Amino acid sequence: MEEIKKIYLDNAATTIVAGKVKKAMLPYLGEHYGNASSIHTEGRYAREAIEKARKAIAGFINAKEKEIIFTGSGTESNNTVLKGLASFSGREKNQIITSKIEHPSVIETCKFLEKEGFEIIYLGVDSNGLVNLEELEKKITQKTLLVSIMHANNEIGTIQDINKIGKICKNKEVLFHTDTVQTFGKIAIDVQADNIDFLSASAHKIYGPKGVGLLYIREGRRIEPLLHGGGHEFNIRSSTENVAGIVGFGKAVELCREKMEKESRRISRLRDYLIKELLMIPGTQLNGSASQRLYNNVNISFRGIEGESLVLQLGMRGIATSTGSACSTKNLEPSYVLSAIGLDHFTAHGSLRLTLGRNTSKKDILESVKNIQEVSEILRNISPIK
Amino acid sequence: MEEIKKIYLDNAATTIVAGKVKKAMLPYLGEHYGNASSIHTEGRYAREAIEKARKAIAGFINAKEKEIIFTGSGTESNNTVLKGLASFSGREKNQIITSKIEHPSVIETCKFLEKEGFEIIYLGVDSNGLVNLEELEKKITQKTLLVSIMHANNEIGTIQDINKIGKICKNKEVLFHTDTVQTFGKIAIDVQADNIDFLSASAHKIYGPKGVGLLYIREGRRIEPLLHGGGHEFNIRSSTENVAGIVGFGKAVELCREKMEKESRRISRLRDYLIKELLMIPGTQLNGSASQRLYNNVNISFRGIEGESLVLQLGMRGIATSTGSACSTKNLEPSYVLSAIGLDHFTAHGSLRLTLGRNTSKKDILESVKNIQEVSEILRNISPIK
Repeated sequence: MEEIKKIYLDNAATTIVAGKVKKAMLPYLGEHYGNASSIHTEGRYAREAIEKARKAIAGFINAKEKEIIFTGSGTESNNTVLKGLASFSGREKNQIITSKIEHPSVIETCKFLEKEGFEIIYLGVDSNGLVNLEELEKKITQKTLLVSIMHANNEIGTIQDINKIGKICKNKEVLFHTDTVQTFGKIAIDVQADNIDFLSASAHKIYGPKGVGLLYIREGRRIEPLLHGGGHEFNIRSSTENVAGIVGFGKAVELCREKMEKESRRISRLRDYLIKELLMIPGTQLNGSASQRLYNNVNISFRGIEGESLVLQLGMRGIATSTGSACSTKNLEPSYVLSAIGLDHFTAHGSLRLTLGRNTSKKDILESVKNIQEVSEILRNISPIK
Repeated sequence: MEEIKKIYLDNAATTIVAGKVKKAMLPYLGEHYGNASSIHTEGRYAREAIEKARKAIAGFINAKEKEIIFTGSGTESNNTVLKGLASFSGREKNQIITSKIEHPSVIETCKFLEKEGFEIIYLGVDSNGLVNLEELEKKITQKTLLVSIMHANNEIGTIQDINKIGKICKNKEVLFHTDTVQTFGKIAIDVQADNIDFLSASAHKIYGPKGVGLLYIREGRRIEPLLHGGGHEFNIRSSTENVAGIVGFGKAVELCREKMEKESRRISRLRDYLIKELLMIPGTQLNGSASQRLYNNVNISFRGIEGESLVLQLGMRGIATSTGSACSTKNLEPSYVLSAIGLDHFTAHGSLRLTLGRNTSKKDILESVKNIQEVSEILRNISPIK
């Protein structure tokens, strides 16, 4: 079946590779194919390209170059911090504080560490998806090794106050990790001002390629590597470097730096319009915070409609959307994030996530509103629950 | 400084991305940018492309599709097997048997597991670099969890008899892992005939992109994931799939399948000629086996000359070579592989590795011989040791 229109509103799952990013990558899938560890010319070209990307990214978050480790994904970055710190610390400090709405790569890693004998505190969140900072502060003890709280949630877009969390952690002298996969390149981050010890990000959420992530590690913080081997990436992440991917990540960050401010204004206006229009459909509600919200995220529940049916019907009309994160779409359980903000099963199952991007136009939004209105009416008419 | 000629003899470090591989990848760095876990059209395109690659690769080694896990690198595959098995098995079977000449991603992971309480037996090798199979058999006990022996060594190209090793492991009822990063796509591998339980490989050694590896896991063998998260890759390797990279890997394997037989004959003839000519230079010796040798590998020691000086001088003449693996070039210690086959420091330091590839021509080899003759003579004339 060929679709007539093509509207992509699933930018939290992944983004298109920007033309300039692809162009920057191509030489490293072509003539510049050296291994960055080789000492000959081909190797040096690769090394220089990697270091240029590292410099661009370090500057972007006010970090030093040697604090930037390239990995294979945001998931790998999260696993590396949590396991690497747990492994390195021995068992003196055996408690990690995180939240109930972290990405699965944090939650599932924490569950693994629980089996290994670690104590994990999963902080609840309020109806907006916000962690209670007083509760966080109270939970920190002498045993606390790490606080790991995401910057913005991938399903509902709620933005945590990482500046305040960083301050709390600094005062309490515990390490602070933040998963910024959804915000990196969208919201300015300063690892110094925010007292961040570890930060995870991913290229493919910001118009870079899939298969490359990064991990910021504050100078002086030590972890056991997750990938042992040849000692690449300052001995933290062995593997022949994905030169093209890293170059693409660097270019993607450069573009974000240029476009971020203007883009955030433009996209947030479109998002506000989209939310306003969709909430006019009877039986809808916005999930997550209205104010502390990532500027490209819309998450709305439609009473009496299965979110999955909405996604499929919109898909047939050429509009790409999601019920939650792409990482959990095979799971028929209602979203644990929506459950954590207090939604009942029924409302959680009726959720639709629309995530806007750099290429989303006003026309796309108008078309989407029209189609969502139509589709939701059709689905509601066949629903047993009105 | 601009080089006149360009001869690349470092194909064991990495290979150029084949034109057809690059072409196959490009749509997935362009219009087909979906997340393979998404249920909309963009997601389905990505999923289909990944499954097509998985099918091609499974068929290539006589495996089932569900036994193929895409990872970020050969290093990740090796780490995943060793740690994942160690973690899953508990501590009943706490011994791993490997060799002294494994890739650093196996050796360093084993060292990590030693710190965690595992017993690792590092089998020595003979002067050709071959593991003693009787010794291997004798060392296997009730405590043995895994035998991990590489297929061919990355520095000296010695090929182990994995078929016999597989048989021994099967008879003794222990698991068998083989790191085939240097042979996958060059030598036919049949995971059934060879009784392989786990196998690691990497795309960038076979004219595919950097940043993608694979792990074969025999059906029924269970390991703890190294990357916990959204449950991708049959719950073994979470992370948004690197679609373009995986597609490139699949295409690279298809090309190997077509070209392997003819290429192995052509390249081994060039290699034999190269070895013959270089051994005519006074004070040279071949490192590794003359017969059980990967068809693209040459490793020769030049008495009284630093291998690194040779690499640098040849580099200035536009010829890319290596002293050992690209993974250990920053290390001034003599190669542990060359030490393991009995070379003294002095001889090991004089080694030059030349690894031929699909694009290596007869002319390249003639040019290289001439230049190596010249450069070695110049370096020997300035050497204090004749």
